[in-house]
Amino acid sequence: MPAETDARISDFACLDIERQKRTGYPEVVYCAGKKEEEAFAIICSLRERGIPVLATRAASSLAEKVKTAFPGAVFDETARTLTAGVFCEEKDRAGLVAVVCAGTSDLPAAREAARTAEFFGSNVEVTSDVGVAGIHRLFSRLPALRRARVIVVAAGMEGALPSVLAGLVSVPLIALPTSAGYGASFGGLAALLGMLNACAPGVSVVNIDNGFGAGYQANLINKLQEVRYAHG
Amino acid sequence: MPAETDARISDFACLDIERQKRTGYPEVVYCAGKKEEEAFAIICSLRERGIPVLATRAASSLAEKVKTAFPGAVFDETARTLTAGVFCEEKDRAGLVAVVCAGTSDLPAAREAARTAEFFGSNVEVTSDVGVAGIHRLFSRLPALRRARVIVVAAGMEGALPSVLAGLVSVPLIALPTSAGYGASFGGLAALLGMLNACAPGVSVVNIDNGFGAGYQANLINKLQEVRYAHG
Amino acid sequence: MPAETDARISDFACLDIERQKRTGYPEVVYCAGKKEEEAFAIICSLRERGIPVLATRAASSLAEKVKTAFPGAVFDETARTLTAGVFCEEKDRAGLVAVVCAGTSDLPAAREAARTAEFFGSNVEVTSDVGVAGIHRLFSRLPALRRARVIVVAAGMEGALPSVLAGLVSVPLIALPTSAGYGASFGGLAALLGMLNACAPGVSVVNIDNGFGAGYQANLINKLQEVRYAHG
Amino acid sequence: MPAETDARISDFACLDIERQKRTGYPEVVYCAGKKEEEAFAIICSLRERGIPVLATRAASSLAEKVKTAFPGAVFDETARTLTAGVFCEEKDRAGLVAVVCAGTSDLPAAREAARTAEFFGSNVEVTSDVGVAGIHRLFSRLPALRRARVIVVAAGMEGALPSVLAGLVSVPLIALPTSAGYGASFGGLAALLGMLNACAPGVSVVNIDNGFGAGYQANLINKLQEVRYAHG
Amino acid sequence: MPAETDARISDFACLDIERQKRTGYPEVVYCAGKKEEEAFAIICSLRERGIPVLATRAASSLAEKVKTAFPGAVFDETARTLTAGVFCEEKDRAGLVAVVCAGTSDLPAAREAARTAEFFGSNVEVTSDVGVAGIHRLFSRLPALRRARVIVVAAGMEGALPSVLAGLVSVPLIALPTSAGYGASFGGLAALLGMLNACAPGVSVVNIDNGFGAGYQANLINKLQEVRYAHG
Amino acid sequence: MPAETDARISDFACLDIERQKRTGYPEVVYCAGKKEEEAFAIICSLRERGIPVLATRAASSLAEKVKTAFPGAVFDETARTLTAGVFCEEKDRAGLVAVVCAGTSDLPAAREAARTAEFFGSNVEVTSDVGVAGIHRLFSRLPALRRARVIVVAAGMEGALPSVLAGLVSVPLIALPTSAGYGASFGGLAALLGMLNACAPGVSVVNIDNGFGAGYQANLINKLQEVRYAHG
Amino acid sequence: MPAETDARISDFACLDIERQKRTGYPEVVYCAGKKEEEAFAIICSLRERGIPVLATRAASSLAEKVKTAFPGAVFDETARTLTAGVFCEEKDRAGLVAVVCAGTSDLPAAREAARTAEFFGSNVEVTSDVGVAGIHRLFSRLPALRRARVIVVAAGMEGALPSVLAGLVSVPLIALPTSAGYGASFGGLAALLGMLNACAPGVSVVNIDNGFGAGYQANLINKLQEVRYAHG
Amino acid sequence: MPAETDARISDFACLDIERQKRTGYPEVVYCAGKKEEEAFAIICSLRERGIPVLATRAASSLAEKVKTAFPGAVFDETARTLTAGVFCEEKDRAGLVAVVCAGTSDLPAAREAARTAEFFGSNVEVTSDVGVAGIHRLFSRLPALRRARVIVVAAGMEGALPSVLAGLVSVPLIALPTSAGYGASFGGLAALLGMLNACAPGVSVVNIDNGFGAGYQANLINKLQEVRYAHG
Repeated sequence: MPAETDARISDFACLDIERQKRTGYPEVVYCAGKKEEEAFAIICSLRERGIPVLATRAASSLAEKVKTAFPGAVFDETARTLTAGVFCEEKDRAGLVAVVCAGTSDLPAAREAARTAEFFGSNVEVTSDVGVAGIHRLFSRLPALRRARVIVVAAGMEGALPSVLAGLVSVPLIALPTSAGYGASFGGLAALLGMLNACAPGVSVVNIDNGFGAGYQANLINKLQEVRYAHG
Repeated sequence: MPAETDARISDFACLDIERQKRTGYPEVVYCAGKKEEEAFAIICSLRERGIPVLATRAASSLAEKVKTAFPGAVFDETARTLTAGVFCEEKDRAGLVAVVCAGTSDLPAAREAARTAEFFGSNVEVTSDVGVAGIHRLFSRLPALRRARVIVVAAGMEGALPSVLAGLVSVPLIALPTSAGYGASFGGLAALLGMLNACAPGVSVVNIDNGFGAGYQANLINKLQEVRYAHG
Repeated sequence: MPAETDARISDFACLDIERQKRTGYPEVVYCAGKKEEEAFAIICSLRERGIPVLATRAASSLAEKVKTAFPGAVFDETARTLTAGVFCEEKDRAGLVAVVCAGTSDLPAAREAARTAEFFGSNVEVTSDVGVAGIHRLFSRLPALRRARVIVVAAGMEGALPSVLAGLVSVPLIALPTSAGYGASFGGLAALLGMLNACAPGVSVVNIDNGFGAGYQANLINKLQEVRYAHG
Repeated sequence: MPAETDARISDFACLDIERQKRTGYPEVVYCAGKKEEEAFAIICSLRERGIPVLATRAASSLAEKVKTAFPGAVFDETARTLTAGVFCEEKDRAGLVAVVCAGTSDLPAAREAARTAEFFGSNVEVTSDVGVAGIHRLFSRLPALRRARVIVVAAGMEGALPSVLAGLVSVPLIALPTSAGYGASFGGLAALLGMLNACAPGVSVVNIDNGFGAGYQANLINKLQEVRYAHG
Repeated sequence: MPAETDARISDFACLDIERQKRTGYPEVVYCAGKKEEEAFAIICSLRERGIPVLATRAASSLAEKVKTAFPGAVFDETARTLTAGVFCEEKDRAGLVAVVCAGTSDLPAAREAARTAEFFGSNVEVTSDVGVAGIHRLFSRLPALRRARVIVVAAGMEGALPSVLAGLVSVPLIALPTSAGYGASFGGLAALLGMLNACAPGVSVVNIDNGFGAGYQANLINKLQEVRYAHG
Repeated sequence: MPAETDARISDFACLDIERQKRTGYPEVVYCAGKKEEEAFAIICSLRERGIPVLATRAASSLAEKVKTAFPGAVFDETARTLTAGVFCEEKDRAGLVAVVCAGTSDLPAAREAARTAEFFGSNVEVTSDVGVAGIHRLFSRLPALRRARVIVVAAGMEGALPSVLAGLVSVPLIALPTSAGYGASFGGLAALLGMLNACAPGVSVVNIDNGFGAGYQANLINKLQEVRYAHG
Repeated sequence: MPAETDARISDFACLDIERQKRTGYPEVVYCAGKKEEEAFAIICSLRERGIPVLATRAASSLAEKVKTAFPGAVFDETARTLTAGVFCEEKDRAGLVAVVCAGTSDLPAAREAARTAEFFGSNVEVTSDVGVAGIHRLFSRLPALRRARVIVVAAGMEGALPSVLAGLVSVPLIALPTSAGYGASFGGLAALLGMLNACAPGVSVVNIDNGFGAGYQANLINKLQEVRYAHG
Repeated sequence: MPAETDARISDFACLDIERQKRTGYPEVVYCAGKKEEEAFAIICSLRERGIPVLATRAASSLAEKVKTAFPGAVFDETARTLTAGVFCEEKDRAGLVAVVCAGTSDLPAAREAARTAEFFGSNVEVTSDVGVAGIHRLFSRLPALRRARVIVVAAGMEGALPSVLAGLVSVPLIALPTSAGYGASFGGLAALLGMLNACAPGVSVVNIDNGFGAGYQANLINKLQEVRYAHG
């Protein structure tokens, strides 16, 4: 019997069920812009095929429905992430991803990154509120941060933290601009431009508030060795 | 005889010769966008009235012409500033303005700021190339910077330096974004937005590459006490 | 015992409790983007250490909670500022900061600036509704404005007021663009660009609606002399 | 014989020779973006039909060629306008259009406006260098300006002049933003937005550097009465 | 007794009560961005001085309050204009302003223009839904439009109507871009840019949705003759 | 009796009832920005003249009212399209338009396109969720897509699907950018720019979320032959 | 022997030599951004395989070189197109594509569209200078335009022509915005936005100055029937 | 003797000579915006300290000067990179970085990335001209690309390549937008936004044309294991 390579759900979705074979990781469900019943149906279809699910931008009401259907499901309200099924057991996590967060308002994006990297198999440590306005707070965390293999740096406003940190460590930084700010932050544009123009090398950037993308990329880098063997 | 309050030059300019009475400082000649003969005529008219002249964005050819006409005139090629006549003798300069510059490419703007503050009566020290990518360079300069009463911070690219420095000193910072950079720096927009969104208080911002404006404001702050008495 | 240099609050905040030593003024709490319980916990932690608190962008409900916990707390509904504890007694305020406001819609930003400068030790006078459309109103206030050591100018729409005023006074102006306006004001962008391009020198600019930043910078300039001695 | 309603010139242009009947004024030749031989051919075709020509954005080399072909042609190098043939004799000009210009760099646009309004039949007075940074210069010109029936106000940088002036006169203002400035003026965008957001009523705006459009509209308003009779 | 030149209302407003002397027309109350009690107090203060009031962007609730206090007050719900007192009796209106409106969604801005021009003394005719997609509708209205002395053209989306109409009439057009549209209309930006770049002369532009500004300028042009005499 | 060429409805609308004669298709009702009673009145007026109606961006409440008045009316909640009367019987539809949709969030725009093309006489097949992140899903649909005469491609985020698909088929593609996305998608701008810059030829683009425009253009192309004969 | 599906040229290019099989038309050479020797090598490689070549944005110097190497090559200096080899004999061209051009400055883009559509097999008629400012010129051309099966409309400045024309014809319009204009045209952005927001349906848009894309899409639509049979 | 931690060069630069200790790699010289003599002096100072130099955005004339002074220096004209001294011998390079390039015009940025990654110790393979318009070219390269540990993807125009490729491989992608394109590519903005909004995870982005940043980050990821040991 030929392998099922995609699977239609009614007329609104088409699961990419072979994604793990191609990329090492299963498809993730982005809930924003989908009706709640659509997101729920997609999650169920994935679970029926035994695929562990990470859903992002999930509303509480969806989380309730999913937790009822799949009792082990876990919802992080700040991160708005919802997991059902386990891709990587906690004990099997390897390597360390540090998630650094400039201010309290950057936490939702930072925690979305953290939950994503954990789900896919990285150990994660979150350090919050070490913005450049009180830069000694960053320095006091440096020894801890230097243990990480990749660092995600979430910041809004002027987004200066990645530039400073990248000059102090030897590992890749994933800069995560957030929409925290007002006025001329233009919804995160100032932070995004700041990070793209970082004067220190070793920084690459994801979309504004894209904690998922930052965490996914960080895990990919952290697990480079392993994954390659797994499907090489 | 009533005081001359303005003075027409041909049909293209109208000197604001009472500006010093109103604001404490004489009018400055911004040369960009003016024909060379227009700029020259304005400079001559001011000198004829005994008004000391600072001209900004001056071309070398204009500088040559002015130096011929007014032998004591001084041209700074990097800053593109030209002075003819002396507003404040070097020995009478008071207070200290520090001009800090993130990278070598920010020097033209930084030096325009320095020359402006000096012309109007401040002592100035320029510190170049202390960008946040190697932040220890900034820390080694901190004791010197803390002697200043105002600090001008020139930076292009992501413009992160003011945010870091403002958290370390107790004096006002004038952030001077420069057009140094490429791509998503959009001609200095990234630096400008970064500085406007600085997470540390004590920062105010001038136009991109506006070294004159930064130096003028820095001098105004530095000399606050004096000036007020002088025309109070 | 080594000095406490920062203080973690749960996992979402890290107080910068030595900021006053470094910069002359304690940390301020920016409430927007923080959950109410987070803002409240931060305020309590600062008060426990005896640090006087200025909180900006505070909601009424937070204000109620804080006033219950700290009976002397004061809330300004228009400015959305909340203070608990006193940094500088009213009788000890020194120097004068003028806050000028182009139109009635600019009052929230203007009053945030005023409350901030007062909290940190400046005398403040607010002059409202002197926009350039009826410029005689500005002229009639000039003698009063000339008594100030720094002037904050809040304006939305085209933001022309700082350009006009800067040509009439001899002290530094902090231009505060506001989001008052519609259509091609693009949320305050028109006013911001107008102020950055002010044709009169002596103007530096803060973020759109950033009354706090304007007031802080104004106070810094006003108190330059004193502060420097205090921690020199 | 039916009237000629349009006239093809080779394959690149189609004269709108009945425009004067419809709108009161003949077609004008905008030279930018046309090859010199195209512009020349269009001017010749119009002259052959006896239509007086105003050409804008004309290069000197085109002007030379036209002056050779049509000896009475007049070229204004600053305004870059070229006229061949006379639409309205100088003695027949009526009403007064004032053209006010904030700075010397705004002169090219201002003079394009002046030449256009004159060509179509208005008396014009140009007042230069009365920017808001020295606003007394504007006040000293007010009595003269109040004699005008329409005022064109050319300004770059922050473009604040129309807001101030519109509150002082009782006639319509045509605001003409120019590209004079740098950095965050973004090629005249700051001035354009400033003028569109003018807080004083009685201001309408034309494109950046569109001196022709400002002068045309000013003349249209000035001559409203007459023209209507002429083709009513 | 010296004339009252301005009048403070509490601490939030400063009436410009001599505006009529300077500009021929009294101050207008822009209600957006003001608290309802502020707008109400300003309206009362003007009425107390016998000044006829036009208030724009007025909410229904404010209108109710004003109608109770000043029984003759009139509210136009679509235009959101509120008038109390009469500046020009209907029988004394002179000249004709045409307000042309591309689509039904442009009516609020168009009617704000119409009510404004009427209030200040012009006869007004509104023609709606003559957008360029069915251009014969415009042609069938041309004879009527040609009776007007000024034409206000309101259009959203691509804002093409002024370009077409300006080539067909001999009077000034005031182009009024509206925010009608979606996607790449960017809140009226597309229409605004379209109108600023109109290829036909005789068009000047006001801010997006600024029906008041368009109507005011149209009336100013229409009444040019009269007003000048009144206060000349 | 002369043909009725337009028809006024009260003072807010002017039906373009001869549009079908000029363009082959009747006028469509765009409901956004119209009051519900206005949209209803327009629909009734068209139906009274026997013109089949397609209304877009229709609210459910309007749909209810229309279905009551015209029992055969059909509402598609996802597409927000409402039809009353039949322009082309289902059995008479000809040719095939394929509507391809990158993700579930793009369905509303895609279905608006589908309903529009069907209404005007095309057979339509919708293929959803074949975004480029799992490009094999697109390849498995290629044989089906190659039966179409025109393809509408709806995509948000980076909008890459048209570029890929245009290199694989020989028919015109209408690219339909959607506002699905967040952060630096800037409301669909990223997708729009992506599609305008498509490196494969054979792509033309409509406004963000303009499913109607895409479906109309697709039908026009599909029915080119027929329509031309019908009114040739 | 397996078919050659791509062909490397040195290390800088990879010919897509099977494109004609997939899409009905061979690959086109876009010369901008390529070194002259690169463009020349690509053209030679295609000719060696007998593939007829259309090169766009070609410099005169490249054209000379190609004409020497391939004597039948043809260069259109205004359009900057270069053809070597014949894809479709002139006698075999079918259907009619009209290319309409608002002003003389839009000719380069318009002719690029014309040359492209001709190369691929359409008859083409170019109509220039029928901008909306003198709309009667458009009406006099309507009978001719109505013979076309597709219309390309090139316009800069406000880009209003497609909106007007689309309401008058029954065939698809390809709107081609050009960079003709200045100031707030922002390099063609105003025209682009205008066309995307066209209030008349039946319009789809290509990139600014993308005459090639417009001509290609127009030909694709025009030849829909044939091409499908040819490779069905 | 304390370690030299920075080194001033005249008054324009301050070498960050301890960068290798902190980050694993020495400082790189960005030549754009520096005077040629400044860049040359910096390169000499680094070489004097035995630090291997990579200079980017180097002009040919600088390259000549450097090659004369340091005979082993190597200049890549397309990449504009200049190396003097060897950081990692070719035989010691480890791991594989693939650099994929959508079109010929993207080569300069792509090769800057390649030269950078090689300089710092990665093996690099460049694959050019595999843009999505002929996606089979990408598929035929997939086996080779899957041998890489990191992939840099350079693309201009719509920047779609990273989205497609990221769904097909299991390693991190560094997306490198280029300024190749015209019109609505807005200098690379379209590609940048496209990449930031990539619908496939595993993509992070650097500044437009920032080949250096992409190559640096790719090498950092590729060498993660080693470097950490080297200075751990």
